Amino acid sequence: MQAELAWLEWVRRAAARAARPEIRLGIGDDAAIVRPRRGCDLVLTTDLMVEDVHFLRRRDPAAVCGRRLATRALSDLAAMGAEPLALLVSSVYPPGLPAAWPRQFVRGLLQAAAEAGAQLIGGDVSSAARAGGIVLDVIGAGQAPAGQALLRSGARPGHRLFVSGPLGEAALGRELVHSARSPRTAIERRARARHLRPRARWELGQALRRSASAAIDISDGLATDLRHLCRASGVGAEILAESLCDAAGQDALDRALFGGEDYELLFTLPPGREPPAGFALRQIGRILPARQLWLIQAGRRLPLPAGGYQHWAR
Amino acid sequence: MQAELAWLEWVRRAAARAARPEIRLGIGDDAAIVRPRRGCDLVLTTDLMVEDVHFLRRRDPAAVCGRRLATRALSDLAAMGAEPLALLVSSVYPPGLPAAWPRQFVRGLLQAAAEAGAQLIGGDVSSAARAGGIVLDVIGAGQAPAGQALLRSGARPGHRLFVSGPLGEAALGRELVHSARSPRTAIERRARARHLRPRARWELGQALRRSASAAIDISDGLATDLRHLCRASGVGAEILAESLCDAAGQDALDRALFGGEDYELLFTLPPGREPPAGFALRQIGRILPARQLWLIQAGRRLPLPAGGYQHWAR
Repeated sequence: MQAELAWLEWVRRAAARAARPEIRLGIGDDAAIVRPRRGCDLVLTTDLMVEDVHFLRRRDPAAVCGRRLATRALSDLAAMGAEPLALLVSSVYPPGLPAAWPRQFVRGLLQAAAEAGAQLIGGDVSSAARAGGIVLDVIGAGQAPAGQALLRSGARPGHRLFVSGPLGEAALGRELVHSARSPRTAIERRARARHLRPRARWELGQALRRSASAAIDISDGLATDLRHLCRASGVGAEILAESLCDAAGQDALDRALFGGEDYELLFTLPPGREPPAGFALRQIGRILPARQLWLIQAGRRLPLPAGGYQHWAR
Repeated sequence: MQAELAWLEWVRRAAARAARPEIRLGIGDDAAIVRPRRGCDLVLTTDLMVEDVHFLRRRDPAAVCGRRLATRALSDLAAMGAEPLALLVSSVYPPGLPAAWPRQFVRGLLQAAAEAGAQLIGGDVSSAARAGGIVLDVIGAGQAPAGQALLRSGARPGHRLFVSGPLGEAALGRELVHSARSPRTAIERRARARHLRPRARWELGQALRRSASAAIDISDGLATDLRHLCRASGVGAEILAESLCDAAGQDALDRALFGGEDYELLFTLPPGREPPAGFALRQIGRILPARQLWLIQAGRRLPLPAGGYQHWAR
């Protein structure tokens, strides 16, 4: 009880540094209070991170887990075109976990939140009775002008498909870090950094509000997230294998399609709309009327294999 | 993957029945969208429920767990004087859990949400890699007129302390249910019902916005939650043992002080303010200037013992 209060007080003080006007009340009462800017809707998302499913304690430093959990929520907000405002985080810790783990975890989370202009405003903490794994749940709150949030459901035949960066590099970086192998190429160095310091695309998401017809973030791998977008829009798509990543070879393509944790945005533009300037975007394909997904590789058109983020820790 | 999609589709359909105008987008996109009524702030809270800490799978039916988790969030919103709008829920299920458990859990949660006028608008689900316990996290979102939410910090010396009902009955009900003993008295029957069908005081919370100087919900036992309120307000208090519950005896008093899960409201009224009509309220004491807590029992004034909700399943 006293230890819990001291811990909450530490978190409250660490979180209070990033005050922003929309946060009327942060940590310390029965609930937090958020006042969205006039004319704005509030956008809410929640994401779990479970030990041995989404991370390995002996391989993934606690601060990286904190940054990655924050990024999951911030990436959802980005996909809605929302401006990040606040995070809440609930944590279940197994008995005997060193006290340094939660502190480093919260530090990583707070750093990612601060970079996005979001404030930690609440949460809950519990110890687990059994020796299961750590369970973390983040809640992200953002704001978007009323009725202007980006949805998955607006893609129509003829719209062009874009992504905000090369895909599959976070998966490559995870392989490098987990195998303790040093990066040898420029792509491998970038991949390692993307795994250790993921960053959501909230600036791009907001810039897309006036131009994109649909958007989703790529957290589970392009193949899965493209399927979600097309299902919600009632359409199909074809994508160009060569456009997805900078590295060559089948391994790189597999990571681009199924790797997960890229936290890039996948979005569609109607004919005549220009992508926003100032972002490194790549056109990867187009929307088709029939509800099927195709991969164009070396001039051949193949059904896009199903699949997606394979929980790698199992 | 397919099973997860089918399950999410079931939840989405079950949740969509209770549409309300503030919910602009529910389950199915990267995030949900909430538009608070004009002039209202959004109130956000999150609460964990962990197997073997907060519930026992063999004793607590899944639907009761769902109702109780919803009630935890709704009770936080009530303590802020907020009108419930929406819930999100994240669930981690161990391998081998029967599919009926999550369905019954969500049914119980949806029923409690519907009674409060709140809609389930999102969440996340993950399986656990290890055979740990079920972990559930609820997020509650409500609305309150700008600047009018009730805080813990407004209690001042001379303000009267009230609670919204007899305390400790949920703990008695838990003992009855867990020992499989049939209730023998009217209080025991009521206690059993309060354990199996807890209900947060959101109507009272909203009615208190214009009169109460401070409020908190009693989820961890009066002794603990009174301490929270007094610490936030920088004051002390004295409470009358005889006023806390209807049952007699030291066991009943212990449950009232330390039992937990009552989900009643504890609030303070400044001199001259009347409590709202139409609620069964009881005055239990008053606020004092010195930061100490006192219990008046049989004419003696004793320091209120520290303590609170003892996680009973350990």
